Amino acid sequence: MSNKKYVYLFEEGNAEKKNLLGGKGANLAEMTNIGLPVPPGLIITTEACKEFSALGQKFPVGMEEQVRENMALLEKKMGKEFGDKTNPLLVSVRSGAPVSMPGMMDTVLNLGLNDDTVNALAESTGDERFALDCYRRFINMFGDVVMGVEHNKFERFLDRQKVKACVYFDNELTAGDWREVIEEYKWLIGKEAGHTFPQDPFEQLFMAINAVFNSWNNERAVVYRRINKIPDNLGTAINIQAMVFGNMGEDSGTGVAFTRDPSTGEKKLYGEYLINAQGEDVVAGIRTPHPIAKLEQDMPEIYRQFEQICMLLEKHYRDMQDVEFTVEQGKLWILQTRNGKRTAQAALKVAADMVDEGLIKKEEAILRIEPGQLDHLLHRRIDPDAKLNVVARGLPASPGAASGEVVFDADLAEKLCHEGEKLILVRTETTPDDIHGIVAAQGILTSRGGMTSHAAVVARGMGKPCVSGCEALRIDYAGKRFLVGNMVVKQGDVISIDGSTGNVILGTVPMIDPELSPAFQRLLGWADQIRSLGVRANADTPKDAAKAREFGAAGIGLTRTEHMFMAQDRLPVVQEMILAHDLKERQVALDKLLPMQQGDFYSILKAMDGFPVTIRFLDPPLHEFLPSAEDLMVEITELRLTGGDKEKIVEKEELLRKVRSLSEFNPMLGHRGCRLGISYPEIYAMQARAIFQATAQLVKEGFNPIPELEVPLVIELKELEYLREMIVGIATDVQKEQGVDFHYLIGTMIEMPRAALLADEVAAGADFFSFGTNDLTQTTLGFSRDDAEGKFLQAYLDKKILFDNPFVVLDRCGVGKLMKMAVELGRKTRPDLLIGICGEHGGDPGSIEFCHVICLDYVSCSPFRVPIARLAAAQAKVKLDPGVKKDYSTL
Amino acid sequence: MSNKKYVYLFEEGNAEKKNLLGGKGANLAEMTNIGLPVPPGLIITTEACKEFSALGQKFPVGMEEQVRENMALLEKKMGKEFGDKTNPLLVSVRSGAPVSMPGMMDTVLNLGLNDDTVNALAESTGDERFALDCYRRFINMFGDVVMGVEHNKFERFLDRQKVKACVYFDNELTAGDWREVIEEYKWLIGKEAGHTFPQDPFEQLFMAINAVFNSWNNERAVVYRRINKIPDNLGTAINIQAMVFGNMGEDSGTGVAFTRDPSTGEKKLYGEYLINAQGEDVVAGIRTPHPIAKLEQDMPEIYRQFEQICMLLEKHYRDMQDVEFTVEQGKLWILQTRNGKRTAQAALKVAADMVDEGLIKKEEAILRIEPGQLDHLLHRRIDPDAKLNVVARGLPASPGAASGEVVFDADLAEKLCHEGEKLILVRTETTPDDIHGIVAAQGILTSRGGMTSHAAVVARGMGKPCVSGCEALRIDYAGKRFLVGNMVVKQGDVISIDGSTGNVILGTVPMIDPELSPAFQRLLGWADQIRSLGVRANADTPKDAAKAREFGAAGIGLTRTEHMFMAQDRLPVVQEMILAHDLKERQVALDKLLPMQQGDFYSILKAMDGFPVTIRFLDPPLHEFLPSAEDLMVEITELRLTGGDKEKIVEKEELLRKVRSLSEFNPMLGHRGCRLGISYPEIYAMQARAIFQATAQLVKEGFNPIPELEVPLVIELKELEYLREMIVGIATDVQKEQGVDFHYLIGTMIEMPRAALLADEVAAGADFFSFGTNDLTQTTLGFSRDDAEGKFLQAYLDKKILFDNPFVVLDRCGVGKLMKMAVELGRKTRPDLLIGICGEHGGDPGSIEFCHVICLDYVSCSPFRVPIARLAAAQAKVKLDPGVKKDYSTL
Repeated sequence: MSNKKYVYLFEEGNAEKKNLLGGKGANLAEMTNIGLPVPPGLIITTEACKEFSALGQKFPVGMEEQVRENMALLEKKMGKEFGDKTNPLLVSVRSGAPVSMPGMMDTVLNLGLNDDTVNALAESTGDERFALDCYRRFINMFGDVVMGVEHNKFERFLDRQKVKACVYFDNELTAGDWREVIEEYKWLIGKEAGHTFPQDPFEQLFMAINAVFNSWNNERAVVYRRINKIPDNLGTAINIQAMVFGNMGEDSGTGVAFTRDPSTGEKKLYGEYLINAQGEDVVAGIRTPHPIAKLEQDMPEIYRQFEQICMLLEKHYRDMQDVEFTVEQGKLWILQTRNGKRTAQAALKVAADMVDEGLIKKEEAILRIEPGQLDHLLHRRIDPDAKLNVVARGLPASPGAASGEVVFDADLAEKLCHEGEKLILVRTETTPDDIHGIVAAQGILTSRGGMTSHAAVVARGMGKPCVSGCEALRIDYAGKRFLVGNMVVKQGDVISIDGSTGNVILGTVPMIDPELSPAFQRLLGWADQIRSLGVRANADTPKDAAKAREFGAAGIGLTRTEHMFMAQDRLPVVQEMILAHDLKERQVALDKLLPMQQGDFYSILKAMDGFPVTIRFLDPPLHEFLPSAEDLMVEITELRLTGGDKEKIVEKEELLRKVRSLSEFNPMLGHRGCRLGISYPEIYAMQARAIFQATAQLVKEGFNPIPELEVPLVIELKELEYLREMIVGIATDVQKEQGVDFHYLIGTMIEMPRAALLADEVAAGADFFSFGTNDLTQTTLGFSRDDAEGKFLQAYLDKKILFDNPFVVLDRCGVGKLMKMAVELGRKTRPDLLIGICGEHGGDPGSIEFCHVICLDYVSCSPFRVPIARLAAAQAKVKLDPGVKKDYSTL
Repeated sequence: MSNKKYVYLFEEGNAEKKNLLGGKGANLAEMTNIGLPVPPGLIITTEACKEFSALGQKFPVGMEEQVRENMALLEKKMGKEFGDKTNPLLVSVRSGAPVSMPGMMDTVLNLGLNDDTVNALAESTGDERFALDCYRRFINMFGDVVMGVEHNKFERFLDRQKVKACVYFDNELTAGDWREVIEEYKWLIGKEAGHTFPQDPFEQLFMAINAVFNSWNNERAVVYRRINKIPDNLGTAINIQAMVFGNMGEDSGTGVAFTRDPSTGEKKLYGEYLINAQGEDVVAGIRTPHPIAKLEQDMPEIYRQFEQICMLLEKHYRDMQDVEFTVEQGKLWILQTRNGKRTAQAALKVAADMVDEGLIKKEEAILRIEPGQLDHLLHRRIDPDAKLNVVARGLPASPGAASGEVVFDADLAEKLCHEGEKLILVRTETTPDDIHGIVAAQGILTSRGGMTSHAAVVARGMGKPCVSGCEALRIDYAGKRFLVGNMVVKQGDVISIDGSTGNVILGTVPMIDPELSPAFQRLLGWADQIRSLGVRANADTPKDAAKAREFGAAGIGLTRTEHMFMAQDRLPVVQEMILAHDLKERQVALDKLLPMQQGDFYSILKAMDGFPVTIRFLDPPLHEFLPSAEDLMVEITELRLTGGDKEKIVEKEELLRKVRSLSEFNPMLGHRGCRLGISYPEIYAMQARAIFQATAQLVKEGFNPIPELEVPLVIELKELEYLREMIVGIATDVQKEQGVDFHYLIGTMIEMPRAALLADEVAAGADFFSFGTNDLTQTTLGFSRDDAEGKFLQAYLDKKILFDNPFVVLDRCGVGKLMKMAVELGRKTRPDLLIGICGEHGGDPGSIEFCHVICLDYVSCSPFRVPIARLAAAQAKVKLDPGVKKDYSTL
């Protein structure tokens, strides 16, 4: 006989033995050992399960013996006997793997009931109907799970019984009805399973154990493990636990409670209970449960006991708990406890309070917050309780929500905005020509374009909600309406958009304002103390810069100068510059742009006084500032066929020629970034001068501007050297002209694979690197974001070829490998190289963790994600830095 | 006094001492030592120059002494004395750095002339005018180079003298004129330099040495070194050599000869000479030189001596020589010898002949050929002697030349072709709709698009000449003409295009057919014995496959299935497939395509019987097979405004919607490659079935087909696994259905950075890798080829930011680094992984060398470049493989 221990009493285990006892078993053991009144029970180990499989579905030698021995101990503890006709012990038999696999394996409740014990149960509960209901449920469950009789065959008998009894609901059936049903169930099992329903409780028990072990390898469990990458050789443990009943009279009851308010985090018991009831009754909603506070009046002793247990649980688990309890004839039993789910607000308050209470350290408090959950706290959002009339769904391109009248035209939007209207600008896609419309609108809705389409990028920059690529929309500009299916939405109709979900909603919706609660502020303060990763914001306007500073950004990691070019008053000058026939003409236009840009930079540097501001030189291809060839073609064709003005035609044709000569097959890989600076040094020269003049002006006014000039799209040191020489020359000129000294850095985006591969060379010409992970992802994967998100990316996610959208969650193994290489190579050349990230990944918590791991100096994200980034940076430090981990070794 | 040796006689040096004696000096020493009659001389070392600089422009101690001593030896050897009034020694003083810097530093000839020795020279040459001419040239040169008097100031006196003498040319001036000029020159120097022209020959000599040393640091030399990356600390040597004169009477003369015919390689002396003349006279073209053969009659002894020297030189230098000689009063002097420039044909013949003659080994013969030079031997080309009327220049998109009548329309081209016309198809750009026109034409000319535009790719695939992106052309389809500047070329006018230069030429041009001479064949045979790198061809048609095989390709490295889709009879079916509303409709179209594709694959596999054929699954985005949105928009606008057929409008609008839904912002990074195979597995399934059915059919017929199925655009192992499972299933099905067994491989393109970065993972699903370096270059550098070549690449090359077009010459440090990484990672997973390259770099000799270095198995290139690749592969092996190098250690 083997002397291996296959069976543990709850009191023999603890939370550490999860692999051997399964998650549920280890948890029950832990609760038992801290002295909670848990219904006693025993655990068959995962080891037994593995041997059971290895032996070809046979129990290992000695296991049965051990089960019987421990069941005897259980009987003694409960003062009941398994199969006893007056005081029978009933048990539940539940699977419990080391890794949670909810609903994948089998469970049997009320085991131990038979034709005799059911009567004893009826007597002790004083409720015959209830006892019989338990019995018929047990037969059904046992027949289905253990004996392989399909559940719907049982259902058929039940339905027949209801017809016979002329009732609609199960709870209308009487004890007599249940007796008939029970006989039919037993008959069904005998017929279908080729074996009568077993009356011997131990026969029931071992059959159930056999079934649960087998369920480890049932099809859905195998599939679940494959999908979730859970090893197949873990095995499941089995928990056999005494049943307790909350419906054994007025001194019994059942309930669920949180140790704190899960909506607000307030420190008070929160939950509900029912006297003389089972857990199911609470769920079924037939009786209305009472708030937990009332228990103090109904059962003062039990309430005090429960309160104490809740405090004990919080102390032990060091988190807010969600506790299930049952009172059986005046005795309190704790059935389950787990960390309670909570709202973002509650999570923040609970974590902060627990630090105050000395329950957890600040580092642990930081880890308690799911940063993704905070996103909606930072934007105006739709009241989560509102009922919505969602008519379509596009891409969630810029978070937040907005309502307003539909408008299809930017000029009209501007006009109506001046008249005080709230508007949603609806376009197939937007162009620089629409900027004033975007400014005027509350939110943007487009039927084409991805998460980096013009509309999306501009809206995110402005912190305005945007839903892009909503392909269900058919926009009829001429008819001033759009169609979704057969529904028509006309100009002036009110809609709402939710840029966090992509939803398009008819009518207005109730909104909630963003909150930065005191608890949130405190946690962020702690995060700032802990984190080593800096947090900056991407901001193109002084307003955004101020917002970012308010949210705790210590600098700007990316200012895109092109958005300044797109402003309505600038665009004609920008176009003049582009259409210039020679350098002289271009210089005239640039001379007009210089003071405007200088003003832009002045305001932003001033708003960020004392913090660094990374200003990127002009990046997009020039044709983005011109109308599309297609529009021009159609215009020209119309003018021709309708006998339009000849001069106008000639003019349009010349513009068309220029547009065509600038048009590109793949603009993402085209004439942009520093390639513009190399073809047209005069453009970058103007921008450098504008930056330095603004800097000099601020220094004179007593401010402390810290400009960092950033060269985009570099692939080669020589690009940087060429431009650096020019920029340094301009800085020296301006310093001389203005008679002031100022400090500045010149660095580069790392956004092309070649720059990362040759980072050791590139670093020789750069004071700083900033990873442009949007473009780096596009080139490394060969994914045009605009095209991928609307076209094939979904198929990739559906077919599990990729697990995440790589534009949202940094592709660590591909793009990340390049980044790591670039950091190492770059610092080999320049150990003091300042390195950051300004792609949208800079605001994604998982990606921020990776940035911490590869030792970046800072992340930069949209102003609204700054608090999230601060928290995520601290979490990465706490989780991954061994020096920090020591401080909360109790975790 | 230093005992350092600063001065060497020629006989004390040799070719090895290049760093000390400079290139020219070492060469003169070498010639002297093998017994050639070289005018004797001495060399001042680079060491002296370096010390001169270090001492602040002072001669190192002992150097002057050594110069005087060696000059004495020189005088003895020549039987002349420096400054002697009857038999004066004249010398040249020339710079000579270790690395050739042609024209960058100074030279002085005829040094030693003064008011006395000029008379001795007049006497010994019997030509007073010549002697005076030498003297005035010397004064001018010395004054300019050594004494810093500007050359044009001397010129002014010369011009005045010609006016005075009423003549136009220098050679019309008399001895008397020269005397006047000499006096004026001397006066000029005294006035400008503040120092009279020195009459003492040694003073002249040391002044000249000083000047030459200083010229090492003159501005143009410094710039030249910076550009050519030559270190500044090498210093220059100085060669002081006795002057010899070919114009000392009828027993004197001068000439230049090749040891073999530089046009054909034939083994016979080839060159020309003049009796009683100087080298300048040959160049000036005043007298017509005689062919070298006539020297045998004029000076039989000299001729025999010269012949023997030529043989000696070839033996010594083991290559064809280009020899300069002078006969001074019956004595033959060799002034210079160097490896002779030659045509490609001559290079091949000389190399092969020298192997036969035992002069060189086969490995050396292989190294003698510049592979790039062979390109034009492999295409029909324009007679290099023809005078051309070049009217414009575009991109050299597909090599070869063609003449024909201009035609603007593919349908018309097809019609005229059937009538026997030779045509050049001229379009702004081509689309799949034009394929039949391209087939019908001799060559293609487009005004837009780069080296990978549709026209370029299709033309290269067909081996037809193409000039693309010729932006000077303004095409007027309506007027059936194009304009270049003010010139009008109408339909039917004859033009020629040269796809190797990009030239567009008016009228016809004389053409030369491609040649594969016997020498070429023999060299390629040797190359095949030597090389370890395999050579395959890229071929889409059986005709190309046959051509490739003829040129020595051992398989096909890339068959693009999309070109098969573009054939005129297929395109409607392909469009039907694309426009299908559901899977069922699409399957109907695919069922029609299956037998067509099967036929394609059958023919290609048969043509390559016994060799592997890599067939790539459909790669381009589907919208490439549809008309453009712009064209459709214009059509619809026209139909509307002219009251066109409503049904037609609706139909066009539906098509437009589809085109729009498929259109992409960056097609290069879009829905293409295996992304299509994952979205529409049925397309790849059809292609796999077609390949396997063709294979089965050939096996049954007794052939040995070896298909390699290639999945394009992979970034992730899971893509490959997903498709591999499907493909293997189809192979198994076909094997069962057809009852035959066959072998096949499934592999992947490595053309996205992520695939290279994760090559260890990807290799787990691939039998082979093939580097698609076109796309890998596009993504690694972020360069859209079509856009870069027409737009900013030229600026990058002009500004030396890039040294080569990365689409022509593989970017070793960026793209190459990724490739090396991929090879190492891939073979770590699968040591037997077959790895090749099929980008256009596979035909570039430098890139082939790199492929050899990183241990690829094969390169694949266009059929016409196969011989070049075979040679380049052998060269890489010979140059870089130490095992091979041993075999020709004399090199």
